[in-house]
Amino acid sequence: MGRTSNARERLLQTATRLIQARSYADVSVDELCADAGVNKGSFYYFFPAKRALALAAIEAQWQQARATLLEPAFAPDLPPLARFPRFFDLVAAAHAARAEQTGAVLGCAFGNLALELSTRDEAIRGQLQAVFANYCAYFEAALREAVADGALAPLDVAQTAQAVLALLEGALLLAKTANDAGVVSRLGGQVLHLIGATGANVPVARDEQSM
Amino acid sequence: MGRTSNARERLLQTATRLIQARSYADVSVDELCADAGVNKGSFYYFFPAKRALALAAIEAQWQQARATLLEPAFAPDLPPLARFPRFFDLVAAAHAARAEQTGAVLGCAFGNLALELSTRDEAIRGQLQAVFANYCAYFEAALREAVADGALAPLDVAQTAQAVLALLEGALLLAKTANDAGVVSRLGGQVLHLIGATGANVPVARDEQSM
Repeated sequence: MGRTSNARERLLQTATRLIQARSYADVSVDELCADAGVNKGSFYYFFPAKRALALAAIEAQWQQARATLLEPAFAPDLPPLARFPRFFDLVAAAHAARAEQTGAVLGCAFGNLALELSTRDEAIRGQLQAVFANYCAYFEAALREAVADGALAPLDVAQTAQAVLALLEGALLLAKTANDAGVVSRLGGQVLHLIGATGANVPVARDEQSM
Repeated sequence: MGRTSNARERLLQTATRLIQARSYADVSVDELCADAGVNKGSFYYFFPAKRALALAAIEAQWQQARATLLEPAFAPDLPPLARFPRFFDLVAAAHAARAEQTGAVLGCAFGNLALELSTRDEAIRGQLQAVFANYCAYFEAALREAVADGALAPLDVAQTAQAVLALLEGALLLAKTANDAGVVSRLGGQVLHLIGATGANVPVARDEQSM
């Protein structure tokens, strides 16, 4: 079970895994400790309450999403508009891989918590809102670049970025409801329509589509 | 608290209200009985378990959404494409009204349960999937009519309808996270882009926009 010195890390990983697979309410501190191989004293040494662990897990999951999804998808090796379908493809592949391991499409870790807790926990709601704003910052940068390149007519960048995020979160919600990660890649095919990009000005570069 | 004969109805209304405001896990049978003014024997006379009440509440909420949102939004008094922004406006207005009563944007009753329970309750997941398919049937009918009218170029109607639903569910998720029902009407402004309708062929008829 590893050394005590990485107990905090193990708790974070356990919380990420169990809460995303079920729900925040369904996972107790006792179960988190048992699964992570950490005693309760150590838990409360690192986290005053389950809620503090959830906040730290959201931050860790954001760092992971940034490193494994947003940074690679929005890298400048593709023209800005082509990065959006690449992003949906990467998200779809990540969810399909996890569904193979767990037998179920687990949905967006952030979206799940947002709907479970937003009416009842202001700190968690605020942190999830910040994560969503971070996603939008990537979308906005690519949209601005596409407008500057002339690939896209001038548009409300903030609003369009929010719409892309809504399509993503909605696609992940429907994928979880259908227990079919393919929903995300199929709906990702609509993201350029949403942006208002016509077929004519979008370079086709969906190598990851078959992943 | 009314007569025993409408105990079932009161339990349904209570379940709808309390579960949407918090979560399925957070509302106990004891609390449902106390809030509805129904004793536990009556509860179990109507519903073998909380889950059975949740399934009945989903059906009741679907009937309400159909009657108050989908039927009026997709009525044939407007050209088919103009019905989509009207639908988003009606949804936004309903959520804004409820937020005024409760102090919080509660999110989509179906989307909330889908993310909370899809990995753990096959019956609830299946019923929510059927509700979402019902929504899509309205979207598909309007899209087919728009194609037949020549207002829209031929397109994958089923896929586009799913994308509209994803935008809706995502917008409701972001509205709940931001605790701002205005997110739904603002993102509803993007729905015609998503459908691939250009400005030229969409009659502007957003009377409800200021609601």
